Amino acid sequence: MDYYSSQITKLIEELSKLPGIGAKSAQRLAFHIINMPREQVDRLAQAMTEARNNIRYCKECYTLTDQERCPICSNPSRDHGVIMVVENPRDLAAYEKTGKYDGVYHVLHGAISPMLGIGPNDIKLKELMQRLQADIKEVIIATNSSLEGETTAMYISKLIKPTGIKVSRIASGVPVGGDLEYIDEVTLLRALEGRVEL
Amino acid sequence: MDYYSSQITKLIEELSKLPGIGAKSAQRLAFHIINMPREQVDRLAQAMTEARNNIRYCKECYTLTDQERCPICSNPSRDHGVIMVVENPRDLAAYEKTGKYDGVYHVLHGAISPMLGIGPNDIKLKELMQRLQADIKEVIIATNSSLEGETTAMYISKLIKPTGIKVSRIASGVPVGGDLEYIDEVTLLRALEGRVEL
Repeated sequence: MDYYSSQITKLIEELSKLPGIGAKSAQRLAFHIINMPREQVDRLAQAMTEARNNIRYCKECYTLTDQERCPICSNPSRDHGVIMVVENPRDLAAYEKTGKYDGVYHVLHGAISPMLGIGPNDIKLKELMQRLQADIKEVIIATNSSLEGETTAMYISKLIKPTGIKVSRIASGVPVGGDLEYIDEVTLLRALEGRVEL
Repeated sequence: MDYYSSQITKLIEELSKLPGIGAKSAQRLAFHIINMPREQVDRLAQAMTEARNNIRYCKECYTLTDQERCPICSNPSRDHGVIMVVENPRDLAAYEKTGKYDGVYHVLHGAISPMLGIGPNDIKLKELMQRLQADIKEVIIATNSSLEGETTAMYISKLIKPTGIKVSRIASGVPVGGDLEYIDEVTLLRALEGRVEL
């Protein structure tokens, strides 16, 4: 690509490493960035490095946050006796958008997948079990309704049941094979309301 | 979006300002960036700000470059007597990829469009005319074959003809309405070979 000057080539290369950005999009983005106001480029670059450098796991629910505890876990008006278990922070955001769930979350950062060699120890499951004190009333399992998500839900329910804590699974209003983050809020709510005890 | 911590929200906001990146893609990209190796994030951020801060117009052909003159204009083995006029640097790159053109370029940074209120003074046309010294043998007009590209080609040929310099237009091998940068190299070459004098 020596028909572009080296700095443009470098920018295109770095951009095309991002997921879903091919050679053509990287090229378009690069020229767009070169023509953006300087302050906007600085803000974007800074947002990237700052987020990368400062984001860590919430010490309670393991979602990504720039504080020790995320805004949800540190909110005293949330019901800390109800924990919704999700696969990743985007799924947490999907349920937050409904505005109707007032419990807290636990982010697994993945799902059990024998196919991909992801076992119970590769996700934040041990950390979930450690949170199950006497004051926990219910654990709602909201993993995706994919094979991996269902496997994970079954696995978790078997682990928790002996503790006597109520375990539920969001209803199958969520289309089978669907990814939580792409589902409309009404369906998400219906799935929450129709949850059944496991 | 207060279900994400502020630094994630900020990153998502900045990313979604980029063209072709909607709310969902911005979210996915943000979480990907947070999980990238720190050095890779730094390289990307640095590539952006460096490119933005150092890229300027080549003083000869007006393509974007980080030098005073672009690699093509400063290459003595290129034929500086033949100038191919293109709308933007991506179109220049498209012809460079064919590897068969050994003249130089002139980048207009747009095309004449009465609809959008873009006139001859809004593109680098005056700058092209200033380059037309006695040692220029030919000007090849390779604007897109859109309405604007054709209008621009006609306009340029009328300006140049009185100077006695040969003016040609890439052949209509390029599909009508097509965008140069998306066309395969064989078609681009055929269009170059079949160019007709205007």
